[in-house]
Amino acid sequence: MGYPDTFSGFTVDSPKTCKEFKKRELTPKPFEDHDVDVQIECCGVCGSDIHTLTGGWGEFEGPLCVGHEIVGKAVRVGKGVKTIKEGDRVGVGAEVWACLKCDVCKSQNENYCPHWVDTYNAKYPDGSTAHGGWANYIRAHEYFVFKIPDALPSNEAAPLLCAGITTYSPLVRARIGKGSKVAVLGIGGLGHLAVQWSKALGAETYAMTHSPHKVADAKKLGADVVIVTTEEGWAEKYAYKFDMILNASDATHKMDLSEYMGTLKINGDFHIAGLGDHPLPSISPMQFTKNGARITGNHLGNHQEMEEMLQLAADKGVRAVVQTIDISEEGCKQAVERMLKGDVHFRLTLTGFDKAFKA
Amino acid sequence: MGYPDTFSGFTVDSPKTCKEFKKRELTPKPFEDHDVDVQIECCGVCGSDIHTLTGGWGEFEGPLCVGHEIVGKAVRVGKGVKTIKEGDRVGVGAEVWACLKCDVCKSQNENYCPHWVDTYNAKYPDGSTAHGGWANYIRAHEYFVFKIPDALPSNEAAPLLCAGITTYSPLVRARIGKGSKVAVLGIGGLGHLAVQWSKALGAETYAMTHSPHKVADAKKLGADVVIVTTEEGWAEKYAYKFDMILNASDATHKMDLSEYMGTLKINGDFHIAGLGDHPLPSISPMQFTKNGARITGNHLGNHQEMEEMLQLAADKGVRAVVQTIDISEEGCKQAVERMLKGDVHFRLTLTGFDKAFKA
Repeated sequence: MGYPDTFSGFTVDSPKTCKEFKKRELTPKPFEDHDVDVQIECCGVCGSDIHTLTGGWGEFEGPLCVGHEIVGKAVRVGKGVKTIKEGDRVGVGAEVWACLKCDVCKSQNENYCPHWVDTYNAKYPDGSTAHGGWANYIRAHEYFVFKIPDALPSNEAAPLLCAGITTYSPLVRARIGKGSKVAVLGIGGLGHLAVQWSKALGAETYAMTHSPHKVADAKKLGADVVIVTTEEGWAEKYAYKFDMILNASDATHKMDLSEYMGTLKINGDFHIAGLGDHPLPSISPMQFTKNGARITGNHLGNHQEMEEMLQLAADKGVRAVVQTIDISEEGCKQAVERMLKGDVHFRLTLTGFDKAFKA
Repeated sequence: MGYPDTFSGFTVDSPKTCKEFKKRELTPKPFEDHDVDVQIECCGVCGSDIHTLTGGWGEFEGPLCVGHEIVGKAVRVGKGVKTIKEGDRVGVGAEVWACLKCDVCKSQNENYCPHWVDTYNAKYPDGSTAHGGWANYIRAHEYFVFKIPDALPSNEAAPLLCAGITTYSPLVRARIGKGSKVAVLGIGGLGHLAVQWSKALGAETYAMTHSPHKVADAKKLGADVVIVTTEEGWAEKYAYKFDMILNASDATHKMDLSEYMGTLKINGDFHIAGLGDHPLPSISPMQFTKNGARITGNHLGNHQEMEEMLQLAADKGVRAVVQTIDISEEGCKQAVERMLKGDVHFRLTLTGFDKAFKA
């Protein structure tokens, strides 16, 4: 078999063998009228991939093919598809399907549809398995396939499909813009994009990091001020300062939330974009009486936000800073190992798909 | 000594003897140009009084005179006071002072001023102790003294000064109005007012209770629908329904937050107005990915909200449902015991101050 009946991807069998990738045949969902098949050119490596592979977010049933920051070429479009043409350079993120009929979808919140299908480690309503982008092809509903503006190189566009939208949507939903003060907490894979979005939207942008060695990077990314949170008294200095803290770290469980939340303006948002494996630290209801702050989070963003984001990146020069690894059994293993060690600056993109999947 | 040098109030010495009230002399803060002295006519009994008296919110230094739902007559006004005249019927709530100079105050958020002074169990910047309203007089800055509209009987107005504003402010800050769907969780001292505010603001109003015997009451208060949360499948039935859950219970630590939060619309608020003694249940950051809901809370409301609320109560017939107890050493004890037993429907007001404090 082979495309279009089967795809080929790098897969693992269980959390215990999460670095042992094997190239395998994958059966995609049946092709329907609103589906688009994308021949993959490159795919980002996301923290979510690692949380899933290691079992940190729960057990999974192998073989598992991860990857949800996908850029490639539309090679087949269903007869109902209106927005994508064969040959378009397109992206697919962390969601490949939603019902598009329920009240949640109709309110332009299909990223919260109760029936949403993740790009991998998920089942479609018909029982088909969704397979991710560390593969030669991906099949997705057109509503979750996005044209990539010409200005964006594929390798740098890939991380925008998940890390980008995860950090962009919270900012626009909180109406961040000129006059706002935003603190981005954690300058890594998510945070380095959050700083750039915040600046591109016109906000006064602060980077919060516990690593003094990240100060120079944060400034280069556009942060107006970098706050090193290991310095004595930092929180008092910034009391009641920020409209929003965009928490782009996945180590929230290690934080003194009270300290961070005290730097928010009245009714400001502590927004958790980075999803760790652990519950949040214990919170007293009294915490909220200090400044009426809100703790919240998000799941990606909607279709419209994705399109706006890609255009903003093209217009304002927002770019994922990526290092690349050629995809292969060994390359996937390396990617996982470097993510686990934190040896990434700031994002990895798997490349060389044409070579790896050549017939 | 006596008024104006000293006040007289019913006090306790420590959490261990929190039902043993003794009438004692209390020294108020020095009278200043913006102060108003209020001769107290009646004072509500608030959950906060009980949480403080029992030590649930922490130790305290006695003698402690609680009470922060105060209605009485302005009998002395400082020469700088513009808004209150001698003889006015006025109310004082749970805050008696803020700096009114910092950025927080200047943003009309003096209820979050970092220097705010609680009505009792608190110190003024000059070291004076703030004493509460289970006493013959209270002294407060004019900004925290509010004229009571004629339409409101004193006994019923008293609980509005804390329970009222605590439930009103979150609704207006969340822009609740016609077209909104609000669920009030817990139909007790706070909740019975929250239901009425929500209706008065024009929202479709749901009451959530785990006590089937509260259904009739909740309907009488104006709830359009009453949800009994011990019924199997209630949460699924109301999935993605509410703009806001106003949590008026102080037993949040016993709740399955995930179940409640699942009934919120996308980016809806789980707002904690009832402050228990215990930390919130453990929350996974994944919780927020389901619908982008927000967990938040508040400390009272601001000056403008207090005035609007009192007027709304007068205009729309919102009333605290109160039972009264005459104040005395025995009466205060009874009040505490009934609150601890939950034998209150829905609010207690201490009355008979003229008799108890007659010279």
